[in-house]
Amino acid sequence: MHAIAVYEGESEPELIDLPRPDPDAGEALVRTLRVGVDGTDHEVISGGHGGYPADTDHMVLGHEAVGVVEDANGTDLSEGDVVVPTVRRRPNGDNAYFERGEPDMAPDGQYHERGIVGAHGFMAEYFTSPAEFLVTVPPELAELGFLVEPISITEKAVEHADASRSAFEWNPDAALVLGNGSLGLITLAMFEQRFDRTYCLGRRERPDPTIDIIESLGSTYVNSTETPVPEIPDVHEAPDLIYESTGYAKHPFESIEALAPNGVLAALGIPGDWDFEIEGGKLHRELVLHNKAVVGSVNSHVGHFEAAVDTLASLSDSFLDDLVTGIFELDDYEAAFVDDDRTIKNAIQFSEYEKRR
Amino acid sequence: MHAIAVYEGESEPELIDLPRPDPDAGEALVRTLRVGVDGTDHEVISGGHGGYPADTDHMVLGHEAVGVVEDANGTDLSEGDVVVPTVRRRPNGDNAYFERGEPDMAPDGQYHERGIVGAHGFMAEYFTSPAEFLVTVPPELAELGFLVEPISITEKAVEHADASRSAFEWNPDAALVLGNGSLGLITLAMFEQRFDRTYCLGRRERPDPTIDIIESLGSTYVNSTETPVPEIPDVHEAPDLIYESTGYAKHPFESIEALAPNGVLAALGIPGDWDFEIEGGKLHRELVLHNKAVVGSVNSHVGHFEAAVDTLASLSDSFLDDLVTGIFELDDYEAAFVDDDRTIKNAIQFSEYEKRR
Repeated sequence: MHAIAVYEGESEPELIDLPRPDPDAGEALVRTLRVGVDGTDHEVISGGHGGYPADTDHMVLGHEAVGVVEDANGTDLSEGDVVVPTVRRRPNGDNAYFERGEPDMAPDGQYHERGIVGAHGFMAEYFTSPAEFLVTVPPELAELGFLVEPISITEKAVEHADASRSAFEWNPDAALVLGNGSLGLITLAMFEQRFDRTYCLGRRERPDPTIDIIESLGSTYVNSTETPVPEIPDVHEAPDLIYESTGYAKHPFESIEALAPNGVLAALGIPGDWDFEIEGGKLHRELVLHNKAVVGSVNSHVGHFEAAVDTLASLSDSFLDDLVTGIFELDDYEAAFVDDDRTIKNAIQFSEYEKRR
Repeated sequence: MHAIAVYEGESEPELIDLPRPDPDAGEALVRTLRVGVDGTDHEVISGGHGGYPADTDHMVLGHEAVGVVEDANGTDLSEGDVVVPTVRRRPNGDNAYFERGEPDMAPDGQYHERGIVGAHGFMAEYFTSPAEFLVTVPPELAELGFLVEPISITEKAVEHADASRSAFEWNPDAALVLGNGSLGLITLAMFEQRFDRTYCLGRRERPDPTIDIIESLGSTYVNSTETPVPEIPDVHEAPDLIYESTGYAKHPFESIEALAPNGVLAALGIPGDWDFEIEGGKLHRELVLHNKAVVGSVNSHVGHFEAAVDTLASLSDSFLDDLVTGIFELDDYEAAFVDDDRTIKNAIQFSEYEKRR
């Protein structure tokens, strides 16, 4: 079967041939429909993130997949079920985080992430997975099911942010998304359903397709070159919730100041090293005197994927049409990795979904 | 009646004469038993915190009080009830935070704090308070009831920290208290009841009475001049919960790194301005990849005072004896404000508690 992998020392993905995998006991065989491409994939390709599976010189890419069960192999799934795989897997035997269904809370070394660190991903015509890590999706979402994983990332981050505000009556009105990449835009669409007013910060100048999406959602675009984060409360308003998906290392610290009283920052970016000066005394004081919170969040678990399925179904067709800028066939896979100003969300199609008759 | 106040432009508290207050409708008149002295009082005296009540050139000090209802004035209280007053009061009419019983979550300008900002405190032979802000205390806690307010500060901070970890199964084993002042030591005694292992960081050298208390609680003293916060995970272990009561502006940022995966920092200190460099990229990454949280917390509400009453009753007599280093009569009030290395927690006695017959 065909698969898309990156080799150690190389900086471009390659189309390779691999044997079709056989499911172990408890695993199902899945025929891959589509796999999305995101910033993490680009980091994995460039060697800035992740790690190869043991005893290999390459890793099959891809962690945002949707597929169809080809062989249920005695699991509770049925052939023809549309499924989305979660990303984290047990590295060696059981551990407490996986046992309690919270692999997203496992620390370094206690998980692999398929397509990211220590385990092959889903960019192959077939993949196997323990059934416990396959979330079923209604057939009508088969084509866009590769969006369930990124949505699940936000489901978790917002669950944790909300939890941090659950000891009092929190009545948030305004939310700010830092970052207009695909995850930022998906999150903005989710926030539009919940908050009275939303803002999305980016670095782009008009005309730009992400700004068009932001405005078609009814949200306000904030150009960071004109209005940096600390000025947002004066120019617009202080947000109750800030969602950081830029990986810009100053953003969490600037956000402490920009938040409204009792507000919370959900941080999701993964920056490289960068030392810089902050107004530390002022930020510390702001945190305390205004009861603010900062919550870091990574990955997601089955419950977040299930919530994400419902969320995906609730997003408008027009938004999803604008978001998905390219579905590329396998023989045109290289185009899916082009990351220019017209690219928002690309996916690679490994096979077509055909409804069961 | 006698009261202890600070005058604008002065830097020492004074014993003054004031008319005994009359309770308004809904208020009770309370005969003051004891009022504790803490770091906030010292900041108020030195002019570094707070603000005078409108149209006055002085403020009666004190926010950690316990007293006896002298005139219930038609409220649900009874004469002879031992009560502790909460601190925040409505500045002008109602606001939503007070209406829902969460004045601790009100932002700047939407509250006064008795003895701290905008309203006279409790260091007087009598004070009045709306009954809704008076928490009854069992008679056996009358002498130490001035500790209910500081304990309530920790009840709230820990409630918010726990809330931030409520979206997953959090199993904390180790807690670190930054600061060996009276609030730090009280918190350490509370943590000793809950955590397997506790640590308390201070700057003192042995012999020192706070180190004696820390060790008599079964906790480990960490001398910050030998082991600064970022080195605590290597020298001891990474704490699941860090409680910051130093007001040292670098501590919240250093704590992000020191926390165990999935850990939370509760920040309570109120530093002055201080700009400094941080390893911002690394801290941002740590927050995200290890699902860490930071929660700022200020003040507390009636529910926290009620919890604090139970907590006070649970603390050992020997700890409380060691903690309270001085009870000063009114004519010796100046000694209560001396803050040397032998002082841990002082209080001023305005009248003696006599049990009802």
